[in-house]
Amino acid sequence: MTSNKWLEEFLGQVARGELDADTARERLVETLRDRPFEDLGFARVDHHRSIRQGFPEVILGLGKTPGQIAAIAAEIVSRGSTLLVTRASGPAFDAVRAAVPDAIYHAEAALITFRQNDVVPGKGTIIIASAGTSDQPVAEEAAVTAELMGNTVERIYDVGVAGLHRLLGERHRLAAARVIIVVAGMEGALPSVVAGLVAVPVIAVPTSVGYGASFGGIAALLGMLNSCASGVSVVNIDNGFGAANIASLINHL
Amino acid sequence: MTSNKWLEEFLGQVARGELDADTARERLVETLRDRPFEDLGFARVDHHRSIRQGFPEVILGLGKTPGQIAAIAAEIVSRGSTLLVTRASGPAFDAVRAAVPDAIYHAEAALITFRQNDVVPGKGTIIIASAGTSDQPVAEEAAVTAELMGNTVERIYDVGVAGLHRLLGERHRLAAARVIIVVAGMEGALPSVVAGLVAVPVIAVPTSVGYGASFGGIAALLGMLNSCASGVSVVNIDNGFGAANIASLINHL
Amino acid sequence: MTSNKWLEEFLGQVARGELDADTARERLVETLRDRPFEDLGFARVDHHRSIRQGFPEVILGLGKTPGQIAAIAAEIVSRGSTLLVTRASGPAFDAVRAAVPDAIYHAEAALITFRQNDVVPGKGTIIIASAGTSDQPVAEEAAVTAELMGNTVERIYDVGVAGLHRLLGERHRLAAARVIIVVAGMEGALPSVVAGLVAVPVIAVPTSVGYGASFGGIAALLGMLNSCASGVSVVNIDNGFGAANIASLINHL
Amino acid sequence: MTSNKWLEEFLGQVARGELDADTARERLVETLRDRPFEDLGFARVDHHRSIRQGFPEVILGLGKTPGQIAAIAAEIVSRGSTLLVTRASGPAFDAVRAAVPDAIYHAEAALITFRQNDVVPGKGTIIIASAGTSDQPVAEEAAVTAELMGNTVERIYDVGVAGLHRLLGERHRLAAARVIIVVAGMEGALPSVVAGLVAVPVIAVPTSVGYGASFGGIAALLGMLNSCASGVSVVNIDNGFGAANIASLINHL
Amino acid sequence: MTSNKWLEEFLGQVARGELDADTARERLVETLRDRPFEDLGFARVDHHRSIRQGFPEVILGLGKTPGQIAAIAAEIVSRGSTLLVTRASGPAFDAVRAAVPDAIYHAEAALITFRQNDVVPGKGTIIIASAGTSDQPVAEEAAVTAELMGNTVERIYDVGVAGLHRLLGERHRLAAARVIIVVAGMEGALPSVVAGLVAVPVIAVPTSVGYGASFGGIAALLGMLNSCASGVSVVNIDNGFGAANIASLINHL
Amino acid sequence: MTSNKWLEEFLGQVARGELDADTARERLVETLRDRPFEDLGFARVDHHRSIRQGFPEVILGLGKTPGQIAAIAAEIVSRGSTLLVTRASGPAFDAVRAAVPDAIYHAEAALITFRQNDVVPGKGTIIIASAGTSDQPVAEEAAVTAELMGNTVERIYDVGVAGLHRLLGERHRLAAARVIIVVAGMEGALPSVVAGLVAVPVIAVPTSVGYGASFGGIAALLGMLNSCASGVSVVNIDNGFGAANIASLINHL
Amino acid sequence: MTSNKWLEEFLGQVARGELDADTARERLVETLRDRPFEDLGFARVDHHRSIRQGFPEVILGLGKTPGQIAAIAAEIVSRGSTLLVTRASGPAFDAVRAAVPDAIYHAEAALITFRQNDVVPGKGTIIIASAGTSDQPVAEEAAVTAELMGNTVERIYDVGVAGLHRLLGERHRLAAARVIIVVAGMEGALPSVVAGLVAVPVIAVPTSVGYGASFGGIAALLGMLNSCASGVSVVNIDNGFGAANIASLINHL
Amino acid sequence: MTSNKWLEEFLGQVARGELDADTARERLVETLRDRPFEDLGFARVDHHRSIRQGFPEVILGLGKTPGQIAAIAAEIVSRGSTLLVTRASGPAFDAVRAAVPDAIYHAEAALITFRQNDVVPGKGTIIIASAGTSDQPVAEEAAVTAELMGNTVERIYDVGVAGLHRLLGERHRLAAARVIIVVAGMEGALPSVVAGLVAVPVIAVPTSVGYGASFGGIAALLGMLNSCASGVSVVNIDNGFGAANIASLINHL
Repeated sequence: MTSNKWLEEFLGQVARGELDADTARERLVETLRDRPFEDLGFARVDHHRSIRQGFPEVILGLGKTPGQIAAIAAEIVSRGSTLLVTRASGPAFDAVRAAVPDAIYHAEAALITFRQNDVVPGKGTIIIASAGTSDQPVAEEAAVTAELMGNTVERIYDVGVAGLHRLLGERHRLAAARVIIVVAGMEGALPSVVAGLVAVPVIAVPTSVGYGASFGGIAALLGMLNSCASGVSVVNIDNGFGAANIASLINHL
Repeated sequence: MTSNKWLEEFLGQVARGELDADTARERLVETLRDRPFEDLGFARVDHHRSIRQGFPEVILGLGKTPGQIAAIAAEIVSRGSTLLVTRASGPAFDAVRAAVPDAIYHAEAALITFRQNDVVPGKGTIIIASAGTSDQPVAEEAAVTAELMGNTVERIYDVGVAGLHRLLGERHRLAAARVIIVVAGMEGALPSVVAGLVAVPVIAVPTSVGYGASFGGIAALLGMLNSCASGVSVVNIDNGFGAANIASLINHL
Repeated sequence: MTSNKWLEEFLGQVARGELDADTARERLVETLRDRPFEDLGFARVDHHRSIRQGFPEVILGLGKTPGQIAAIAAEIVSRGSTLLVTRASGPAFDAVRAAVPDAIYHAEAALITFRQNDVVPGKGTIIIASAGTSDQPVAEEAAVTAELMGNTVERIYDVGVAGLHRLLGERHRLAAARVIIVVAGMEGALPSVVAGLVAVPVIAVPTSVGYGASFGGIAALLGMLNSCASGVSVVNIDNGFGAANIASLINHL
Repeated sequence: MTSNKWLEEFLGQVARGELDADTARERLVETLRDRPFEDLGFARVDHHRSIRQGFPEVILGLGKTPGQIAAIAAEIVSRGSTLLVTRASGPAFDAVRAAVPDAIYHAEAALITFRQNDVVPGKGTIIIASAGTSDQPVAEEAAVTAELMGNTVERIYDVGVAGLHRLLGERHRLAAARVIIVVAGMEGALPSVVAGLVAVPVIAVPTSVGYGASFGGIAALLGMLNSCASGVSVVNIDNGFGAANIASLINHL
Repeated sequence: MTSNKWLEEFLGQVARGELDADTARERLVETLRDRPFEDLGFARVDHHRSIRQGFPEVILGLGKTPGQIAAIAAEIVSRGSTLLVTRASGPAFDAVRAAVPDAIYHAEAALITFRQNDVVPGKGTIIIASAGTSDQPVAEEAAVTAELMGNTVERIYDVGVAGLHRLLGERHRLAAARVIIVVAGMEGALPSVVAGLVAVPVIAVPTSVGYGASFGGIAALLGMLNSCASGVSVVNIDNGFGAANIASLINHL
Repeated sequence: MTSNKWLEEFLGQVARGELDADTARERLVETLRDRPFEDLGFARVDHHRSIRQGFPEVILGLGKTPGQIAAIAAEIVSRGSTLLVTRASGPAFDAVRAAVPDAIYHAEAALITFRQNDVVPGKGTIIIASAGTSDQPVAEEAAVTAELMGNTVERIYDVGVAGLHRLLGERHRLAAARVIIVVAGMEGALPSVVAGLVAVPVIAVPTSVGYGASFGGIAALLGMLNSCASGVSVVNIDNGFGAANIASLINHL
Repeated sequence: MTSNKWLEEFLGQVARGELDADTARERLVETLRDRPFEDLGFARVDHHRSIRQGFPEVILGLGKTPGQIAAIAAEIVSRGSTLLVTRASGPAFDAVRAAVPDAIYHAEAALITFRQNDVVPGKGTIIIASAGTSDQPVAEEAAVTAELMGNTVERIYDVGVAGLHRLLGERHRLAAARVIIVVAGMEGALPSVVAGLVAVPVIAVPTSVGYGASFGGIAALLGMLNSCASGVSVVNIDNGFGAANIASLINHL
Repeated sequence: MTSNKWLEEFLGQVARGELDADTARERLVETLRDRPFEDLGFARVDHHRSIRQGFPEVILGLGKTPGQIAAIAAEIVSRGSTLLVTRASGPAFDAVRAAVPDAIYHAEAALITFRQNDVVPGKGTIIIASAGTSDQPVAEEAAVTAELMGNTVERIYDVGVAGLHRLLGERHRLAAARVIIVVAGMEGALPSVVAGLVAVPVIAVPTSVGYGASFGGIAALLGMLNSCASGVSVVNIDNGFGAANIASLINHL
């Protein structure tokens, strides 16, 4: 018996006086404590959430087979929702395209997207700044994700701190953003410098770019966590999607 | 308005026909989703839990002032519950004793206890084995905790693997236990050897005993996680209390 | 000369008075100290163990050739024992199947099994809960292992803490288990949440699922070792088999 | 010669025709490249920043003597700016109070504050949630900082994931926040759970609370970086101030 | 409108008296603060730099496609600049050679070079010493780079500390260098020994040569950072190029 | 009943024909498997061991109270055994001296010793070489221990690799040793260099001397484990006693 | 001019009175300081060494091409020396065999050997004990190396601590060895247990066998460094050759 | 017999024809190989070194008693050499002052100095730049050391990357230096930015300033090793002295 069914019957019994007040209260409390929550409409929280965020669901491609990805993708699209698959391989795209012919593959960002009408536009501009050309795949993961989530995105790439004039030349564009995502590998110093130039939240994304003592991004991660500039928070190594998601949350406030 | 009050009124409205079925169901679901759960008796889960486990509540002394500890202790005792404070300093005990005069201080184990009538006896014997004399404080934390939780406890101390005959001499006592807690620092090899001798669950507790490359217990922790013997699970470094708690759970099954 | 043979002769000499008391005692002690233990029936411990546990022997496939695996498997099966090979590749299965035609390959769990009549049923239910779909191979390793060891197993998959209502919806199934295995990668928070909901032992299995600062499962491992909930013990990263083994030990108590 | 003076003279020369176009351009470019930037009004960026953020300057007490702290504090206050000293010891407060008699010491948060009229109010509510009582000092550092920066702050303390009903009971307050700071030590799972319940940015602050394999906060930090919930970004261990600063930036957008 | 153009017009307006002094100064400052710096000739700093160092630009091959590398290479060469590509694969060389037919591939060092007339000769000799034959690729990266930058280079290979007489036999050559690059993996002891023999700067390059507890070069890196000899500074693991660059800077002073 | 007693009775029964062969054998095997081993003279292994090694028992002072140390020390001495307490504090010595008036305190080495007649002289010379003056306490722990164990010891201190001529000046003394202990902190390069000069076993002892990236001896430990010279084995950080023990074992072969 | 030549001429000049005492002494000292040492016969140390050790030279195959290996191998063999190549691949063996037709390839140990008459026999027996079958390649590297160096070797494999009776059954063989090499992965507990049973030096070799928190051998390495048994020294992870070399040094004393 | 004496006699014998050529050569080679090197004037290398570097000897105060330090200091000063004691405590200074009344204590830098006439002036200017006020002790250690070694030193403190205009304002002073020491804690980004602005060698000194994930300077150290700017080499954490020593070597070239 579903919860709705049960509730209907229960309230009927109360309405028909078949249950006295105490028994009714006791039974209700007892039942509620035992039922799976989603049976009680609890799951609508998730629905509300997607309405507010303008973005409902994301498939992490990592560790799923092309077939699994395509099946979930088809279901999402059939509900009228915008599709986003992260860390998607070429074969995954082939499988998805069979089910969602107009899906797009962003090879550098390893994303599959298909936009529908459920996306709420953000308020300001999100800037994606990156230090070196090797950081670009992660930066693109962030940029494409943020755009798909309804945000205006500007890319400022290849402005590493070793050539400061390039960054300083973009100072005014940076200052005009509502939130900035900074993507950097190696020593991960760019977020500190950017945050020192602006007064908006900076989301720092360490990348695994580098060699030797970069330890697959740990050096950049530690650099960003220890930023001497205020306004910098950090996401996991190479997590361009996560940064875009947070930036979009902020840009939709 | 409390939840009980609200429920009473709501059910009254339904009973009086003041709410039609659909409205009633909708309002109920809406309200339930919004109420703090404990208002609905949900918190009784914790009560049930203490009944089943025979042990309700523990105060982690670490990072609390003597005054804070004594206040919580007094409240627990006043409810008729057995008291256990872990990582308790001498001053903490002085403060607790002012509120709970018969509380006992186990200095080596850094525990404060006061037993009441709410403890359910366990079924078999829990053995606490330890490798060296320096591991004894952690072993005692486990032993006193397990006893307080209603278990029969046997201590087999100072049976490190470098003098194997001592351990082998206790082989039959070990085999007769229902669950064994093994406490060891340095290379943490004792749980592997014990688990190879018996067919009961072994809870391994690495200690921070050692120097140099023991890294405050990491060497022992890694040794235990990588045990080549089956039947070994591990708790945090120096966490004698946690091990006793798990062993007691198993011993009350 | 075997030990049995030697003992027989020795006791005969004593019985026939060919050895005086002192000499007999001395020779006996001397000999016992020098003999390999298994000559004295010591090895029966292992036999007893398999009887009690209902499970005798497991082949760790990692680092063994298909031929080696098949040979050991054939020997185990010929003794009438249930077969379990962990971390088994496809080629390993091909080799085993040649020797044990009815062996089964669980590809996702990378296990080879062949059940015989030597398995003792466990008492209650073991629940295997997992956080995400990528944790499923490790969860399946635990589930299939636990089933093979004679336990009733229930799977509750994909109940990660980011969507709490899914987990809460299973609260009552969880509470009815005798022991719970929780499998999670990334931040490894699920065991803490589960242990807060139930009063039975929780065996936590960190998985290597994740990227960047998950460091191949270290983040999840540390999260589980530091669980703020009581009742959680931990096994090695990806060690579904080990967790099942411990859970089965507990479930056979 | 100051830059203003130089510019004045230079433009005078151009106006008086004493410099031909090419020479003028060359000299100007040459000079600009060589001048300290602040001479050119560049430093106004910082001024603009404090106006927008409503908060100009913060003294990190760590590694400064009471005398140094008091001197900087006096200068800030004399400019009419609100004062904030972080990681301030008792002696530091004594020194500051001599210079700024109405300064307030928040002992648990180790902050010294003195509010003036330069603070711009934020838009919504910032919630500070913390897992255990030992996390409270860091939570208070965040809370007092956020309040001083003009934000409405609500504290939801002691809602660790091991007792989920406490957290779920606060679900609706959480959902009403504009940004949430989550402070947790040990396994650091709280941000994941909170972020799964709401659709606003979550700033996670790992604390050094814990022992053994918590490694001074590393376990919590890794847990947060690997959060399976979206919307979580992370600051340095124990960095309550940093989290409040970011939250305030977001709340002032 | 370019900056030059703007400046020209602006100065013309001042010269023609179309702007009064205050307005002129204000507009100039305002504009300068807003312009990308390179528009103002700021980028000439880089030009100056290449003149002084005798080496303008380097392409890090890591993480770039052959096509990208070839395109940048072609542009550099067309400007008359010497070309250096580091971490260059064979396919990258094929692509470069199509654009720069006389480019040379140094396979062991994984470098592509093409020398033009813009290199300034260094003053003394740079010695590249290496510990074992496996360190040679990194040593060659340093050697070829240093030569291309205009330095006289001497190689002293295979002089590990376990066979001290080989190193001591080169003592006088070492003492005659202006700067020494020491390349070593495993325990990384060679820089300490070399620095004890000479009175010139020693640049230490740890290599990832080794196995087990060498941890991909960490052991060597730590050994070099902790050198008991004075005069040793360290670059990243396997960073032969970086060491050569610093050595060349010193040799051109 | 002791084992001896039991054996006596048992053999008497066999001799008197009170037990038939099968029963006797069965009972004997059964009993042996169950008895603590030391009851069967097994513990004599330890006795044999001390005879061979010329050294019976050592008290690790770390983590024991002065009273505990003094009690064990008194018992050892009363048996006629030589006494060695490692990591002994001043108060520990005071307590020991009360029980063993002629005990000696080696303050730098933190050892308490009292020599009796049970020490067997070693065959050759053990050299203790150390890199810097700060390594001397660990070197002395090794030297005093080795001497107490009956070995001829030569100290060659302060021969760090940065001043190679000092070490080379001792080359012939080094070559004449039977086994060499090399004590070094910082980069730990000395064992590699020494092992390259001689053809005898080198026991390397990393010390916690250093700062920064020496990480309390990890740099030296890794350096020694990765030694490019053959003949080097390693003990724990600061473990001068352990090294001396191994060296003495070798020197008594 | 070679050193011999120079010396001859110099001594001739002295003998002929062409150089007065002071000039002669000065020139001699000056020259000696400047000459490569090997010119002065210094390199004979290496020669002496091989005579004493009975083993002259070893080729580390790691990081060398088959061609390089074959060339060095040919040279060693032509000098009449025994050949040992470690970490040798199949192609390396093919190349060596072309030059040294009777060379032998030990595939499991990845060694190439060719014995000549220059090996001095050791005095006692070296035992190689290993914990699991996966440790066998490293154990074989040690065993084959030790045999080639002239030692009598006994293998005791698969005696891990989880099945203690297997090890105890070999107790007397262990006690009869002159030196024991213990090879173990996972928790690396075997050396502690072995060293507790014997009174001879134990060389511990951690292997990279294991998964998850074994971290490629770190767990075993730390376990061995922290051994609670005395007499254990440690070599690098998987360094079977190194252990055999040390054991052989000891066995030739 | 000293070497000089021996040489004299030997050359006399040759001159007098008492030794034939072959015997003379043999005896000479034999003797030279056996003599401690310093007997042959080899130690003069050290003398030469101090002449070239203008700085002879430094006492590392860490781990030495005040008495030891004072004794060595007195000896150095008596030879006419300039004195430098690093990591010197107040009591160490009291002891030194008793022996060297005019010695100076630099409390912030923890240095004791006494200048004599043996210091050779450097050629250019060494700039010491530091990021924050807490980095100042390390910066001062570098600055005072460099001055004592004869160099002109300029300090540019408190120019962290979060407030870029302060650093840019010093751009021309930076560009005029011969070598730059950059001292920074936290994320350690300053050296990258500085090296991007200049064309001289940059010596980076990570400091242990920071908290949480700065791990006592590891974050800064990794940041500097992974610098994306060329021209940066790194010394140990907090090693201001080491950096100054290298900078002085370069400045004396």
